[in-house]
This record gives sequence, C-alpha cells and structure tokens, in this order.
Amino acid sequence: MSRFWNQKTRKISPYVAGEQPREGQKVIKLNTNENPYPPSPSIEKFLKSFDPEILRLYPDTSCTKLRIAFAEFWGVLPEQVFCGNGSDEVLAFAFQAFFESGENAAPLLVPDISYSFYPVYADLYDIPLKRISLADDFSVPVEPFCAQEGGVAIANPNAPTGVSMSLESVERILIANPDRVVLIDEAYVCFGGTSVVGLLEKYPNLLIIGTLSKSHSLAGLRLGYAIASEELIEGICRIRDSFNSYPVDTLAQKVAELAVRDRAWFEQNTGKIIATRERVRAEMLEMGFDVPVSAANFLFVRPGQIGASELYNNLRNQGILVRYFNKPRISEYLRISVGTDEQMDKLMSAVRKIWVEVKKENG
Amino acid sequence: MSRFWNQKTRKISPYVAGEQPREGQKVIKLNTNENPYPPSPSIEKFLKSFDPEILRLYPDTSCTKLRIAFAEFWGVLPEQVFCGNGSDEVLAFAFQAFFESGENAAPLLVPDISYSFYPVYADLYDIPLKRISLADDFSVPVEPFCAQEGGVAIANPNAPTGVSMSLESVERILIANPDRVVLIDEAYVCFGGTSVVGLLEKYPNLLIIGTLSKSHSLAGLRLGYAIASEELIEGICRIRDSFNSYPVDTLAQKVAELAVRDRAWFEQNTGKIIATRERVRAEMLEMGFDVPVSAANFLFVRPGQIGASELYNNLRNQGILVRYFNKPRISEYLRISVGTDEQMDKLMSAVRKIWVEVKKENG
Repeated sequence: MSRFWNQKTRKISPYVAGEQPREGQKVIKLNTNENPYPPSPSIEKFLKSFDPEILRLYPDTSCTKLRIAFAEFWGVLPEQVFCGNGSDEVLAFAFQAFFESGENAAPLLVPDISYSFYPVYADLYDIPLKRISLADDFSVPVEPFCAQEGGVAIANPNAPTGVSMSLESVERILIANPDRVVLIDEAYVCFGGTSVVGLLEKYPNLLIIGTLSKSHSLAGLRLGYAIASEELIEGICRIRDSFNSYPVDTLAQKVAELAVRDRAWFEQNTGKIIATRERVRAEMLEMGFDVPVSAANFLFVRPGQIGASELYNNLRNQGILVRYFNKPRISEYLRISVGTDEQMDKLMSAVRKIWVEVKKENG
Repeated sequence: MSRFWNQKTRKISPYVAGEQPREGQKVIKLNTNENPYPPSPSIEKFLKSFDPEILRLYPDTSCTKLRIAFAEFWGVLPEQVFCGNGSDEVLAFAFQAFFESGENAAPLLVPDISYSFYPVYADLYDIPLKRISLADDFSVPVEPFCAQEGGVAIANPNAPTGVSMSLESVERILIANPDRVVLIDEAYVCFGGTSVVGLLEKYPNLLIIGTLSKSHSLAGLRLGYAIASEELIEGICRIRDSFNSYPVDTLAQKVAELAVRDRAWFEQNTGKIIATRERVRAEMLEMGFDVPVSAANFLFVRPGQIGASELYNNLRNQGILVRYFNKPRISEYLRISVGTDEQMDKLMSAVRKIWVEVKKENG
C-alpha cells in the first residue's frame, strides 16, 4: 500500500485473469477460453503487404469500416455499432455511461454467479449491486430481473456456467425495464447460443456486448464491440471521448475487419468447437460427472468423486491448465475451455487416469 | 440527450480531437502533431514474417519485453515502466489512481493553458481542479505549484505552447509536494526538451508519462507509457486490472518494441523535425510573427496582422490543416505541427501570400 494511492485505489479488488504460461512453456491451455484454431488466413496475407507508414497518423476514431463489417455480420446499421479495445473496455464504458453511482442509486441487477469483472466495475465506479441467485441448475431466474431497479447486466450464455437464457426470457426483462439499460453480454453466443440482436428493433434499452476474442480467434488483438440503439451508442462514445479518443489502433481495425468478413472460416471453427464440446460432454456424463448443457466454448464440470481443486492441481502438474474458481456455490466445479480434439483427448486421458485412482482409493 | 444516459454521461464535455481528413482526401496535415516520417523500417520486415496464429491467445498483460525495451531506452528498471493503449489511457489511469475525487478533496493543480484532456479527466472522475495561470510569455510559474494541494499535472514541454520548464523548476515542485503525485507529461520531450527521468531516483512521487505517437511515428498504434517509482506503477496496474486486464494487444507490443529499439531511426527523424522547426520559426519571426521558443514538434504562432482564425480558415480552404483553439488567452494563436521541409515550404508560401494580401488591405 503506497501513500500516493488515492482512497479508491487502496480499496478496490482488481480482476484476476486466468494464468498465462511463460513463453516457451509447453502446456495445454484450457483456462481462458481462447479459440484453439488460428484466425482467418486472410490476416497473414494482409500483414505481408501492409505499409506501416500509415501508423504515423492517428487511427479512425469511429472505426468506420470495421463498424460496417459488424453491421453486415449482424444485420444492423453501422450507427448501431461501437468498437473498443476488447469487450472488457466496452463493458467498462457501458457501466460508466448507463448505471448510476452513489449509495442512493438504485442497484444494478446481476446474477450471483456470472462474469467476475462485473462486480469489479461496480466497485471502481461506485455502482451499487444487487446479486440475484441463479437457480440450482444455474439457470437465470427471470422474475427478479423484472424489478426495474438500476439496470441489468447478464452474460448470455452465462460465464462460467455456459448456461444460456431463451430469447423470451430476455424479452420479458427488457419489457419490465423500459427506462433502464439491459446489458446482455454475448461474449460466448457464437457457440450455439441465440443472440438477442433481433430484439434491437423493439427495445432501445437493449445493449449487446460482443468480442472477437473467442469466436474469431483474436484474443490477442483486443477487439470488443457493442450493438444497440443509436442513443446508447452515443452514450458510450461520450465516455470514450472523455477517456481515450482513439482506443482501437489502425492495425487492429484492419485485422478485425478481415476476420469479421471471413464468415466461412468463423463458421468452420465454431462448428468444430461445438462438435468437440458435445463429444467431450457426453464422455464426461458417462463417467458420472455433472456437466450443464453448454452454449459456450467451455464446459462447466463437477468431476464426481475426484474433487474440483484436486483435479485442477493434478492436471496443472501434468501441464494441463483449466480454471478453478474458489467461490461459493461453484467451488466443486472446473471451467474447461474446449480445445482441439487432440488436446481434449489428452485431457480426457489424464482425467480418466485420475478417476481410476480415486475410485481405487475409495474402494 | 437520451433518458438512458446516467447523470455523469449527461453532464460531461468530452475531449474534441483534431480533425482527421477523410480517406483519399489530399491535405497537408499539420493539425494533430503527427510525425511526418514513417516509423522504423524494421516494422515492415517484422509484419511480413509475423504468424497471426499467436493472436488467438491473450496478450502478455504486463508487456514484459516492451517494458524491458523502454527501461533500456530511458535507463530505468522494467519494474518502473507501465505500458498502455496510448498515453491518453495511461493519463486516465493515473488520474483515477492518484488524484482524490469529491468536492471536499484538495484540488489538483494544472496550468490554465495546457493539454485540454486534463480538465476532461477531472470532470469524468470528479477531481476538483485549480488552474494556475501561465506567465504572459507562457512559461509555467513554479511557486503556485508548490502548495501541496491534491497533486500536480503539467505537460513539459507544454501543449499547445511548446514552452518547456527547466529540470530545476520541476525539482522544486517535487520537493514541495512530498506526499502528492507530480505528473509530468512528456509527450513532446524528445524534440529538444529535457526529460526529468533522472529525478526518479530521488522522488518516488514523480510520475512521467510518454508516448510513441510523436517521437516514434506511431500515433496509429496507440502506445503510451508511464515511468515512475514501483509503488506508483503498482497503483496504475490496480486501476488497469479493474478496467481491462489486457489493454495492449500482441501486435502493438511487438511493433512498439521494434520502434523503441531502433534508436538511430528515432534520432534521425526527431533531428530532422527539430531542424525544420528552427528554420520555419526563424522565417516566421522575420515576418514579425510571435512564436515562443518550442521544444516540441509544433510551433505556437501569433500571425501578426493576419488574425489567427482568418489564417486557419484560409489555410483550410487551401487544404492545409492546422489547429485553432478558440479559447481565452490563446485565441490569437495557431498550433502548427512540424511536417517535412516540403510541407512546411508549401505552408510558408501560402502564409506569405495571405500576409502580402493583408498588408495591402491595411495599406
């Protein structure tokens, strides 16, 4: 603790991201929901002929061409799209723009188990939070989000559970919150979830957040976006322009645009990941593990008799990284990103060996 | 104004960046202090052989290799360096980390004429400001900054004046503020100013902000940094990790590292810009213009009888963009970025023609 930190800096608990292996360290990395396949081949071709002279100029702050590509991808207007430096930045802007701060403000409603960055933003921006308990099967209950308090933020599919909500459920929440922003974080929607983008026409209070990190294999590029009514997009722009006029660099804009436009590559990779996920889930269910239906690029797994933290440590010692959250209600689960078939076979082979050991010990 | 914006979003006045010409529009762009020369040639070579597969993984959040490059460039430890997505982002983090908010907080001291983003941050984060008047020659007065209020933020060289402070003046302010952070924004220091980096050993309250936008021709890459004591760097990291764990993408880290390591290229280009600046300033002085000594890559010019806004508009009509701030005390000045010799010759030729016209009109 430094005497130069202000009160806020002393009191916040920053977000802790999943472990990143050191360069050269050989691991099977299934702990931060990265896509196991490379990004669109058009990117390599583009970089080979890119003239860096343009980097001497500031980027296009409004990401015009990239917004057009997203608009075509999602079937909306370019004016309904905002691009930022990763969906975490876009989420931070949205929390600052729409949710009221101070102890007298109505609380923002979030699921008790969800993306653990939401409470960090709330803390940083002094936004009071009300945590709504998920059902025992990790589904999001609709009624408690219909209270019209300070707004709503839900990840759909939810993290780290992978469980998704129906379009009808989201619509009921939108209708019940006509004067509040309902933020639906669709970071994982492209792996079999249903996007609520079709509801935008009817609901100016709907704010959808997306990212190229998972679906388009570009976690290293930092490209997140928002899709919403023009008035919400304008609100986010006001915060951006009070923070950093040019958050998305010229190279990132161009690389991202190529990725978004290569729909065939995107569909092939997300399709492969979905197929691998379903196969591995079936194998785990057969072993008696509890694995909720996932619409994301990860599985949320209660590994039967093994014990989640034991399995986490055991796999880690073998160079297989998965994510363990030592938190209430989910401390018996592991979040396992879906890798290639080969990676998942190695994972399952390691898990099976541990499982046999544990069964032997337990007689 | 949207009913979905919170109170903060309604009340802020975002920063307005200099105009960016539309793609394909032919202009001489001397309005946003970009470097007229391309970045290090090593960047083009690197991008030709870059394998984008690595972009599927999250970047190194701590920018390890880039921090080592900066540490060697400035003669400090890597632990004393923080990298962010443009110096605007780094400034925003610093304002959040160190300056106290709320109406009862002691005010942050800033010059009345300085980088116009500082009051925007103060507004966004509710930091009370006290503006200290520059002297008539635009020099920064030392005494009023020795008050130990809520901290100090000064651009050195200052923007948009180009006027720089001595090392001794900064040291007096550091000594007088032992318990407050003194932020020295050195965005323009590589064009003949004196960096205060040598004072870091003695003053844990010194926070230096830098950028590759101007000195290294990388405005389009968004790469800013801070150099300070380890305790200040840790404070900035706490804010970053509550906002966006990975603000600097993998490509930007690698491209920036190459630029920082190409010291010969950097010295050649900054040297050329300094030579051009001095030549043009001499020509302007000869025409009777008021042009303070500049240690930056721009000149701050009161164009004699022409009138600043008239000259701005006249140049703009001819496709030459410079910056005009319609603000108290500086509304009779233009900020003109230093371009190539050829660009500056075209500028001076246009200015001379307008000057002759005005002299004729005034008899």
